[in-house]
Amino acid sequence: MTASAPTGPLPKYHQLADHCRGAIQAGSLLPGQRMPSLRALMAQHMVSLTTAMQACRLLESEGWLEARPRSGYFVRQPSVGLLAPVNDPPMQRAPDAAQYVGIHAKVSQFLSLGRLQRFKTNLSVARCAPELYPAEALQQAALRSLRHHPDQLVRAAPPQGCLEFREVLAQRALGAGMRLSAGDIQVTNGCTEALNLALRAVANTGDTIAVESPAFYGLLQTLESLGLKALEIPTSPRTGISVDAVELALRTTPGIKAVVVVPYLQNPTGSIMPNAHKQALLRLCQQQDVALIEDDTYSALVDDAVLREEPLRAIKSWDDSGHVLYCASLHKHLAPGLRLGWISGGRWKARVEMLKFAASRGNERLAQMAAASFIGSAAYDRHLRRLRTTLVTQRAQTAQAVSRYFPEGTRLTVPRGGLSLWVELPQGLSATTLFHAALAEKLVIAPGTIFTNSSRFDSNLRVNCGWPFTPEIDHAFARLGQLVGTLAKTG
Amino acid sequence: MTASAPTGPLPKYHQLADHCRGAIQAGSLLPGQRMPSLRALMAQHMVSLTTAMQACRLLESEGWLEARPRSGYFVRQPSVGLLAPVNDPPMQRAPDAAQYVGIHAKVSQFLSLGRLQRFKTNLSVARCAPELYPAEALQQAALRSLRHHPDQLVRAAPPQGCLEFREVLAQRALGAGMRLSAGDIQVTNGCTEALNLALRAVANTGDTIAVESPAFYGLLQTLESLGLKALEIPTSPRTGISVDAVELALRTTPGIKAVVVVPYLQNPTGSIMPNAHKQALLRLCQQQDVALIEDDTYSALVDDAVLREEPLRAIKSWDDSGHVLYCASLHKHLAPGLRLGWISGGRWKARVEMLKFAASRGNERLAQMAAASFIGSAAYDRHLRRLRTTLVTQRAQTAQAVSRYFPEGTRLTVPRGGLSLWVELPQGLSATTLFHAALAEKLVIAPGTIFTNSSRFDSNLRVNCGWPFTPEIDHAFARLGQLVGTLAKTG
Repeated sequence: MTASAPTGPLPKYHQLADHCRGAIQAGSLLPGQRMPSLRALMAQHMVSLTTAMQACRLLESEGWLEARPRSGYFVRQPSVGLLAPVNDPPMQRAPDAAQYVGIHAKVSQFLSLGRLQRFKTNLSVARCAPELYPAEALQQAALRSLRHHPDQLVRAAPPQGCLEFREVLAQRALGAGMRLSAGDIQVTNGCTEALNLALRAVANTGDTIAVESPAFYGLLQTLESLGLKALEIPTSPRTGISVDAVELALRTTPGIKAVVVVPYLQNPTGSIMPNAHKQALLRLCQQQDVALIEDDTYSALVDDAVLREEPLRAIKSWDDSGHVLYCASLHKHLAPGLRLGWISGGRWKARVEMLKFAASRGNERLAQMAAASFIGSAAYDRHLRRLRTTLVTQRAQTAQAVSRYFPEGTRLTVPRGGLSLWVELPQGLSATTLFHAALAEKLVIAPGTIFTNSSRFDSNLRVNCGWPFTPEIDHAFARLGQLVGTLAKTG
Repeated sequence: MTASAPTGPLPKYHQLADHCRGAIQAGSLLPGQRMPSLRALMAQHMVSLTTAMQACRLLESEGWLEARPRSGYFVRQPSVGLLAPVNDPPMQRAPDAAQYVGIHAKVSQFLSLGRLQRFKTNLSVARCAPELYPAEALQQAALRSLRHHPDQLVRAAPPQGCLEFREVLAQRALGAGMRLSAGDIQVTNGCTEALNLALRAVANTGDTIAVESPAFYGLLQTLESLGLKALEIPTSPRTGISVDAVELALRTTPGIKAVVVVPYLQNPTGSIMPNAHKQALLRLCQQQDVALIEDDTYSALVDDAVLREEPLRAIKSWDDSGHVLYCASLHKHLAPGLRLGWISGGRWKARVEMLKFAASRGNERLAQMAAASFIGSAAYDRHLRRLRTTLVTQRAQTAQAVSRYFPEGTRLTVPRGGLSLWVELPQGLSATTLFHAALAEKLVIAPGTIFTNSSRFDSNLRVNCGWPFTPEIDHAFARLGQLVGTLAKTG
């Protein structure tokens, strides 16, 4: 577990552990195989004995290696493999239109119950511990900006966003294959406002929007607040939304105005859409002249092992017709305290800008300038690499805890990045029942039912891995596992 | 003209000038009357000769006094009195429903034309010069907040807004007669978002909203963006919206969901609603069960002379049924660079909070903490008094320039506070034509037509008085006056 400060270069043992972990993930070192000896690691990587030992101990604590007495370290059968992955939903079922009337009330009830009590452990959020974010570097950037532009608080900010910030965003977008100019970018109050603008740009009250099922509850709340109907499209925990099901829906349901997808690390399942799926979905939307709203909140948290196989590609990167409205945010990977997102509205650019101006005018300057300064520096990529490495560890530790403590028949999907796991309880047990049982013990979980307006996913829960895996969290999982066991016997 | 820094106590000569100006405004000193001698002022107010002289010179520069050789200072027939006030519109005409389709395009065209060129002088905005705002004090407050809470940028902010900020707002609301708790307040991204939330809380696409005519173009854009219809209600440049006309409208037009008013310093006319009108409007809305959206953007800029007659009273202060949604902002009177507004949603409180959460989540912490710290200090009231005094001077100087340079028949309303004048050109001349003629000379004005979706107000323009009255601005008015004269001859 890496609890070190999130800026500055990684310590050497971390770099070495990264290298070995990558080799295991890539299959160069197989489960059961003997690790190179400490002596060999020292020679190959020109590190000290201490560094080699620290690296192996770290990998051991993460569950990648096991130490066998007098034999050295061996690659471990990953214990997460003991749990079968969560099942794909039936992909060819008929489209499922929900009005989402009341989704806000349902979600609010869960959220407010979770807030009412002084909980011991909150596994329901999707957020990292504050210490995993570069607080000090951002603070310094904000202080610098305040000193260099002392009157910025009394000068109105530009409606589209600060040019310096939009330029940095345009540069970073190249990393996901998008060629955007600063003029293509509208800065927003987080991805939430970006999604609101995208939906309002392409649809009117009463229109239907195709969404993933399960989907981020915040999107469902936004749809309800805008008076939009939602059509839940089957979504695989591995490969994301079913493009065939979208096609079926577009053919059979009139008046669908947009499809909303999270191609990377979908919330709550963590699925990643293969490039072929993304391209097929884009072609479909182009042919049917339907807007494609791409929510790219999480791609900065995709594992480096995945990036080594294939670099990031946003759907927007293939969009030659302007059908994609690309939405993103700094909230999850850089600074949960900054309300900074952005949208590139494609053919709806002018309408998006109009709606933003009429909804909330331009964002404040300070946060944009601080973020631009940090993102434009080398510290940004260092922070992201470190955060991703930490999340690999925390996900592995959390997955181990689930497989250790939860009863047989529990299924588990460990995404290839991000800060959540998607769990399925055995025997169709209700996570809502578990929610209430856990709440009595001051533990908060996110039951699957808040990610849908249907009756599905009641056996699922989303589990946060954003916090360092402390004994307290280990204890919480042990207790949760007992509660599930009790439910299994009594239910 | 007061170009001094906006914090710290007012210099003595300013205080003395305030006192004398108040006496003139209250009618204790009448036009043509001799002012007390310098010696008498020194004795009465215990000030030095220099102070007494500076005060008289300031009042002379503002046009309140004239120096007559060897006779001393005399109260001047106010030159703004040379221009008749802008006429009230016919108050009993039939309600005028406009769909506002295209209002954004119309406004955008004017705004973008004004931005295209490097203008010399921009009289079209409604904003003060940056040096009239307490830039340094706010910067220091932000720096302090960053140092005391170094990790605030990486911690998610509370959805309703920071408690410290809401508490300070609730305290200040007492000054306008409102008893609110921090829990009654939802922080927003400026008054624009507050108005959006208010409208969305009470109305759905296609519903009708009664608005002042003329009205702030931003409100008209928001209505258009939300698909709401607007009903333009006759509004007096002196006393604001016609309550009789609202009553007629509610009786004859079905489905009106809300009335939106700016009781203090309405934009663009600067009208102030008498308390009796406010109470009558509230009773009407209560009887008819219609929401009353109170936009209180400007009340902090009401002249001290007015406040001496009658303290501020928000409509919300009489609201015993929760029909008023009170919206306000710091934008105009404290910090145009902060996007901080708030709303107290009355009986729609829960729905407003839901909509805010679904639209943009909570505001960032830093701006709220900096604003709370400044507003909670004595410097806030000092800043407001100074700003109001400065605006009295700048409005008087601007009004003099209009009466000096514009042809006979021009009408002018000088509001009792705020940063704009409302002008009516003679002979029904078109301010749109003037806009284009002025643009060719790199001067930008705000023609009356952007404040309505009807064909009315084309002879009006709103003139900004937020900038210190420099020779450049004087020159701009001289040139504008010539342009109007030319139009009068050729048109």
